[in-house]
Amino acid sequence: MIKPKIFKCISCSDAPDLNRVLWGGKRHGILERLNAGEVVVGDGGYVMQLERRGYVKAGHWTPEAAVEHPEAVRQLHKEFLRAGADVIQTFTFYCSDDKLELSGNVTTITGAQINDAACNLAGEVANEGGALVAGGVSQTPCYLKTNSETEVKAIFKKQMDYFLQKDIDFFIVEFFEHVEEAVWAVEVLKSSRKPVAATLCIAPQGDMNGVPPGECAVRLVKAGADIVGINCHLDPLTGVRTVKMMKEGLEKAGLRAHLMVQPLGFHTPECNIGGYVSLPEFPFALETRAMTRWDVHKYAREAYKAGIRYIGGCCGFEPYHIRAIAEELSAERGFLPPGSEKHGLWGAALEFHTKPWVRARARREYWENLLPASGRPKCPSMATPADGYQND
Amino acid sequence: MIKPKIFKCISCSDAPDLNRVLWGGKRHGILERLNAGEVVVGDGGYVMQLERRGYVKAGHWTPEAAVEHPEAVRQLHKEFLRAGADVIQTFTFYCSDDKLELSGNVTTITGAQINDAACNLAGEVANEGGALVAGGVSQTPCYLKTNSETEVKAIFKKQMDYFLQKDIDFFIVEFFEHVEEAVWAVEVLKSSRKPVAATLCIAPQGDMNGVPPGECAVRLVKAGADIVGINCHLDPLTGVRTVKMMKEGLEKAGLRAHLMVQPLGFHTPECNIGGYVSLPEFPFALETRAMTRWDVHKYAREAYKAGIRYIGGCCGFEPYHIRAIAEELSAERGFLPPGSEKHGLWGAALEFHTKPWVRARARREYWENLLPASGRPKCPSMATPADGYQND
Amino acid sequence: MIKPKIFKCISCSDAPDLNRVLWGGKRHGILERLNAGEVVVGDGGYVMQLERRGYVKAGHWTPEAAVEHPEAVRQLHKEFLRAGADVIQTFTFYCSDDKLELSGNVTTITGAQINDAACNLAGEVANEGGALVAGGVSQTPCYLKTNSETEVKAIFKKQMDYFLQKDIDFFIVEFFEHVEEAVWAVEVLKSSRKPVAATLCIAPQGDMNGVPPGECAVRLVKAGADIVGINCHLDPLTGVRTVKMMKEGLEKAGLRAHLMVQPLGFHTPECNIGGYVSLPEFPFALETRAMTRWDVHKYAREAYKAGIRYIGGCCGFEPYHIRAIAEELSAERGFLPPGSEKHGLWGAALEFHTKPWVRARARREYWENLLPASGRPKCPSMATPADGYQND
Amino acid sequence: MIKPKIFKCISCSDAPDLNRVLWGGKRHGILERLNAGEVVVGDGGYVMQLERRGYVKAGHWTPEAAVEHPEAVRQLHKEFLRAGADVIQTFTFYCSDDKLELSGNVTTITGAQINDAACNLAGEVANEGGALVAGGVSQTPCYLKTNSETEVKAIFKKQMDYFLQKDIDFFIVEFFEHVEEAVWAVEVLKSSRKPVAATLCIAPQGDMNGVPPGECAVRLVKAGADIVGINCHLDPLTGVRTVKMMKEGLEKAGLRAHLMVQPLGFHTPECNIGGYVSLPEFPFALETRAMTRWDVHKYAREAYKAGIRYIGGCCGFEPYHIRAIAEELSAERGFLPPGSEKHGLWGAALEFHTKPWVRARARREYWENLLPASGRPKCPSMATPADGYQND
Repeated sequence: MIKPKIFKCISCSDAPDLNRVLWGGKRHGILERLNAGEVVVGDGGYVMQLERRGYVKAGHWTPEAAVEHPEAVRQLHKEFLRAGADVIQTFTFYCSDDKLELSGNVTTITGAQINDAACNLAGEVANEGGALVAGGVSQTPCYLKTNSETEVKAIFKKQMDYFLQKDIDFFIVEFFEHVEEAVWAVEVLKSSRKPVAATLCIAPQGDMNGVPPGECAVRLVKAGADIVGINCHLDPLTGVRTVKMMKEGLEKAGLRAHLMVQPLGFHTPECNIGGYVSLPEFPFALETRAMTRWDVHKYAREAYKAGIRYIGGCCGFEPYHIRAIAEELSAERGFLPPGSEKHGLWGAALEFHTKPWVRARARREYWENLLPASGRPKCPSMATPADGYQND
Repeated sequence: MIKPKIFKCISCSDAPDLNRVLWGGKRHGILERLNAGEVVVGDGGYVMQLERRGYVKAGHWTPEAAVEHPEAVRQLHKEFLRAGADVIQTFTFYCSDDKLELSGNVTTITGAQINDAACNLAGEVANEGGALVAGGVSQTPCYLKTNSETEVKAIFKKQMDYFLQKDIDFFIVEFFEHVEEAVWAVEVLKSSRKPVAATLCIAPQGDMNGVPPGECAVRLVKAGADIVGINCHLDPLTGVRTVKMMKEGLEKAGLRAHLMVQPLGFHTPECNIGGYVSLPEFPFALETRAMTRWDVHKYAREAYKAGIRYIGGCCGFEPYHIRAIAEELSAERGFLPPGSEKHGLWGAALEFHTKPWVRARARREYWENLLPASGRPKCPSMATPADGYQND
Repeated sequence: MIKPKIFKCISCSDAPDLNRVLWGGKRHGILERLNAGEVVVGDGGYVMQLERRGYVKAGHWTPEAAVEHPEAVRQLHKEFLRAGADVIQTFTFYCSDDKLELSGNVTTITGAQINDAACNLAGEVANEGGALVAGGVSQTPCYLKTNSETEVKAIFKKQMDYFLQKDIDFFIVEFFEHVEEAVWAVEVLKSSRKPVAATLCIAPQGDMNGVPPGECAVRLVKAGADIVGINCHLDPLTGVRTVKMMKEGLEKAGLRAHLMVQPLGFHTPECNIGGYVSLPEFPFALETRAMTRWDVHKYAREAYKAGIRYIGGCCGFEPYHIRAIAEELSAERGFLPPGSEKHGLWGAALEFHTKPWVRARARREYWENLLPASGRPKCPSMATPADGYQND
Repeated sequence: MIKPKIFKCISCSDAPDLNRVLWGGKRHGILERLNAGEVVVGDGGYVMQLERRGYVKAGHWTPEAAVEHPEAVRQLHKEFLRAGADVIQTFTFYCSDDKLELSGNVTTITGAQINDAACNLAGEVANEGGALVAGGVSQTPCYLKTNSETEVKAIFKKQMDYFLQKDIDFFIVEFFEHVEEAVWAVEVLKSSRKPVAATLCIAPQGDMNGVPPGECAVRLVKAGADIVGINCHLDPLTGVRTVKMMKEGLEKAGLRAHLMVQPLGFHTPECNIGGYVSLPEFPFALETRAMTRWDVHKYAREAYKAGIRYIGGCCGFEPYHIRAIAEELSAERGFLPPGSEKHGLWGAALEFHTKPWVRARARREYWENLLPASGRPKCPSMATPADGYQND
């Protein structure tokens, strides 16, 4: 059995190193790792998990907790790191001043304060484990309102400048429903000379304007994205399927890029183009749709087989889900995450349970084949998504 | 609308006080609060939540994280406090030396060290919010092996002495499947002159020897328990139903005690006497059975209507579930928990969402009547429990 | 493999006989067969099946089709006979003049006409296969309205006299929700000197007055019933369970009687005391709850193991369900029903199918273990019964 | 409310006529009716229903019952007629001599005998109600084995000649998985100068060679089909969707034909290109997937809205399902079917029920919105189809 080792870098000729991140005095960058064939594990979802812990307000979803309750944000960063994440994303979702003002949830804390605190927290934790820090840029209300390239790019420019004041390692353009806006973001961020990853929150049907995933990928790579893929909105296997369509689009166009997926951590078999936001259970009754760790094993394997090498999660991915990615791909990566010291692979530690029928579950076949019951006989298994989106 | 106030003690004639806990220089004890008619909110489940966060090993379930990762335990205590918990239980489940040795998971940390660290952590956090600290004593392997009253009582005595070295407020005898053993625990702990609460993890069918809940309650109160009830193993509404049976038993016997319930946070409609341990999904595929916050509202209301005044949760209760108890009973308690500053009651904050159909969910009727879909059309809604237990 | 033989009587020392029914010039009576240890197969449900075929009006459920469309009634009798039924019940449900008048569905046909036609049809078909003819007497509106023993018994007397004009073999007192009324019916019908079977449509909780099944059985046997049991209202396995409770009641009282079960052909796991009439799907959306033939195999085996020897069905039992009873118990009975010439046991004839994966289903293990999907992902698996009945 | 009238022909200028079928001494043909804008109601499924009644052997599915048990076949014809069917199909599925021989189920009856008997039965019943008689021709084993146009056409020619000896009204080419073979059948049958309807049992993905539905329709019409559409294999709404694709294909090609649909009577949301034959429940555990009459109302309305005017059913459609088509479209047709004398529209007759909560169901809204529970909490709602077919 693979034993947990704290850290090892497969793109480094040196022996495994507790710091892992030093290579000629510099941390290995995201592209060096991906170019070397490493599997990079992303982190999980922050806003939904911090909402359940009591620090984020659903409906607003603003990240003022970075200032108000730094210990809560730091703890979740630590848990993802411990679960095996190679990248820590700054907790800066929706922290532009206009968004904060619009939501009305926070009046005494500025976006600059949040950004500063969030970068510090991410950097501090990332340093403990040799992880990289990624700064995220998301879709803007401005795009839908004005569709002005100048105005939207100015917002991205301001966000970029914020991040460049702190020592982040690369950018993630994420949670974009329109590839046009994502392309603008990539164009701005590439001016920083930092690597840029771009993930859309779209369905296999394409973006909100009907641009198919393959064409989206082509546009993003032409704009300068080093890594392209999918995040949020739809379940993991759908996410992988959509990234495959991106890959095919790139291949047809003779382009190359690294592939990335950070999908939703909920089962959404009936979703339309709007993703889980269109489900009746969003956002306060999604429990029954949650992934088990075994669902995540399947997802990680499928993502790997599809050629994706940056594999993480978005809303619904808790620390143990990230650990499941790292465990499923531990042979490929050559090590287990620190958090595996508290986890028997495939339920192995159940052999210490007092009940014989629970001990009998200490094996892969059991968990791989289990069809978990909902315990909710008066509930259906599929819902009718809101039809606010046009549907094919 | 009820506004969140940080703290208020309804059993105190003084004005609401940020410290809330001082009454003639002393904290209000658990019995003073219950005698005054207060609703006491318990905390949630530690081991399952810390397993998902990466700090507890399923199968062993031992609490060495109190020593190894105190920041993780402290953070979860804080979250429960913030969610409205009036009691913080020490994270000392399964920490007797023999259990630690038996499980083989921890070799360099003693039970004494864990107990010491856990009491410090619970006390530290409880003090931040005027909560009480409860020390827990659970069923022993020794009981099943020897059935020796002398030996089992010696174990409880040793645990009690540990706790008495620290300044805990009261004891909780919990997670007992045999009322006989629970009675022995109560008899020992009453010698401390601290209040004793006693909760069994039994089904409406009775304890493992078939003693019905009503008779169990009578025996526990006769042994000296101040508070009796149910914890873990079965879902909230079944827990409330079983406590009602206890109440009826006490009434028939002309006895009185406060009532308490800290049930499982999962739907278990098909459970037999063994509870959720007998379900195929235990312990790694219980996600689909998780309570929503709205399920918890119903539970808290039913518990209150049944006359139960100490209402908390066990495995599966996360911070937002505890907050739901505190919110459902905020009118009775006169205040909202601190964590409600990040929660619109009944989804109220969704009125700020960008999608019109999500804004339409900012109301109680929507969430109260929603039947959430599992998103798992190839899975059943009920499982077949293991038949290791005799079943009626 | 057991080959289909048209007829054989195991209580007869003679060789199997195409007529089977002659024994010293007389047909073997129901009690002779049961006393000899024969398994007697009952027929299935008429009103629901004829409703689907277009001859009975739901809501009224009156049997005027015996006069209006005799070919339809005759055909269904034939199908049950061919499926293995040893008893053909007259199609006379609800045919008293007051009921016909009350329902308002039929104005030009009298109860006497229906009864006459129905007895002729049943007798004609029964004679083709050596089956017995049973005349049924059911609960009266009069009982609930007056609770007058005199008036209710007068109704039963009139019905009995009708039947005695035709050559029926025995009586079945069936579909009674109150044992008191069933006892009155038995007392009247015993005066005919014909054998009397009495089946209640009650749940394990007891009759509508709360009389437990065991006590019900005792009262019926003391009143003169030769055979007691359960019919309609709840699913087969619940029916068997309730008959077991009757059996235990009789044993405790030192009484003996033959046991009979003719349950509902629908799954009703959530039913309260009111049975399937309390389900939201009654009567026009019960399709999804229908028994498969394999469900019936399990039922027939359980019924046999419980010591029940008169095993049939009620609403929802179609001809192929009755055949499944006869096939499951063909070894015990020594022969297969005529209808088995068109049925490979346990799917054996599928080995002739063109698709290889269908051919692979030509075996018992496949069908015994299949968990059939509903094909209705937006529907729940259990409903909430109407609460018109008091519920425990 | 529309009152049931026995017969009325809307394409006839004469007053409604009990015979309905005479127009200048001749029955109105299928094309005259469709050309006049009539809605033509087809009949339902024979083999599955007669299997359940005990007269057809699953796996073989041969129609020897027309000779062996004519009363059973006649009765089912009558039930469909009574339910509103305007067309009676001869019970001649799989009755070519080679198929009978191949299946090995029948050795003493020839295909010629069956065909003769079946045409007589269908004609006899059709005459009772002014219905048309349709003779069906289905896919041949020969096509898959030889792909020889000459050989396959010879088989169709022989079948045609059989039918032309009897007085059938038109031909239905049905249950073809390859449009090429169906085209051959149409070409042969058109030589008879009788109208020819052609229905494929294909999914929206196209026929087994991947020819899309629109292209299939074009080829069939070019070959001479007067009516095109879909039968069997997939559920009603999928059937309607596929016919719509056919319609679009014809419109693009500038062709015209009448549209027809006779779909499967089971819910098959997860089906692949193979249809319900690929489901694990085929053929002996399909009960839970059965249509309710209310499902059929929705289907009939959707079919009508899609411009389809020949609307019937295939396997799984029982007489009450056909009646539901005729009732849903009674306003358009101007009359109710005879069978409606035993059916309150939308449950109207339930107002005579004894239980108040059942009486409350005597209304359209109740049944239209009901989500029927399966009563099978241990079963899933969707299955995994066999992967014997290539899948997109």
